[in-house]
Amino acid sequence: MYMYPRPIARLIEELSKLPGIGPKTAQRLAFYLISGSSERVHGLAHALLEAKEKIVYCSVCFNYTDDDPCRICAAESRDPSLICVVEYPRDVVAVERTREYKGRYHVLHGAISPMEGIGPAQLRIRELIQRCTDETVKEVILATDPDPEGEATALYLARLLKPSGVRVTRMAHGMPVGGDLEYVDEVTLARALEGRRELN
Amino acid sequence: MYMYPRPIARLIEELSKLPGIGPKTAQRLAFYLISGSSERVHGLAHALLEAKEKIVYCSVCFNYTDDDPCRICAAESRDPSLICVVEYPRDVVAVERTREYKGRYHVLHGAISPMEGIGPAQLRIRELIQRCTDETVKEVILATDPDPEGEATALYLARLLKPSGVRVTRMAHGMPVGGDLEYVDEVTLARALEGRRELN
Repeated sequence: MYMYPRPIARLIEELSKLPGIGPKTAQRLAFYLISGSSERVHGLAHALLEAKEKIVYCSVCFNYTDDDPCRICAAESRDPSLICVVEYPRDVVAVERTREYKGRYHVLHGAISPMEGIGPAQLRIRELIQRCTDETVKEVILATDPDPEGEATALYLARLLKPSGVRVTRMAHGMPVGGDLEYVDEVTLARALEGRRELN
Repeated sequence: MYMYPRPIARLIEELSKLPGIGPKTAQRLAFYLISGSSERVHGLAHALLEAKEKIVYCSVCFNYTDDDPCRICAAESRDPSLICVVEYPRDVVAVERTREYKGRYHVLHGAISPMEGIGPAQLRIRELIQRCTDETVKEVILATDPDPEGEATALYLARLLKPSGVRVTRMAHGMPVGGDLEYVDEVTLARALEGRRELN
């Protein structure tokens, strides 16, 4: 069996560890990188090390940032009375993309999942409750994923937050815009019917 | 519009430059790497730099190697009278995977493509001709891709090698093993019929 020269074997192995990158793709990427310019490889290696070194958690919302507090938490223009709770930093990107949301965030870094051994203590829940003791906070939008773990986490948070008197809301479930009724799963369709609104 | 912290933006940008990695996948990979252990990121960064630094061309066959001449060219067990000519180092891996081939290689690093401005001078053709002046070499198998550029390169090499008296062969074209006759393209099918062999 052909043995790659060690440095190539190692690069393929490291690339294969990335999610969604199988051995075939890893080989293709490795050969692409080796055949390319030194600048390209150094650019990628440097970006990797720099991101790992400079990115920290925002001490307020726990989103990734290179400046603490993060730009959203530091922005005067962002409504401090509104906190949108999400599971991961990537979810902040998704909500920001709507350009509709002007409040702040709280990143839990996961959802409660007994199956994976993730309990409330592994998430940034204590810090969220702490933030909500500040009377500036009027509403917490629970935007965890609409899957069993996300729903369980939302219910758990709603119960925890009740005593604080803060308004707790959950994102609406329903038909995706541009979706096709025929192809929407029955649970989503049921939720969409249940959450129906009057047209006027 | 949400702006990623600069180190994240830069990592996503670098990852997006890789073939087959779009902005969405690049974002997923970036967040995965940032959320993971320092060792993982350092492992990948180090593997990148090491591969780029230590991998050179074998001065005989021009395959990638960390030791010149490469292990195949240096192996006593590999028949020096037989040279398999391929376009890229990845093609060596593919041929080696058959475990059938016991000769040596020559890597052109591309194929003749007037469309892309790649002429014979950009490929390791001169070095191949030089190798074939050695009377140890008895046969050159042209294993360039069965596409227009690969075919043109094979024809060009066949003509160049004719005066040397070396036997020049081309890989057989035909039905892929396990393929379905109904779905094989007509050119391959025509070649398979043309190259038919007697059963006995």
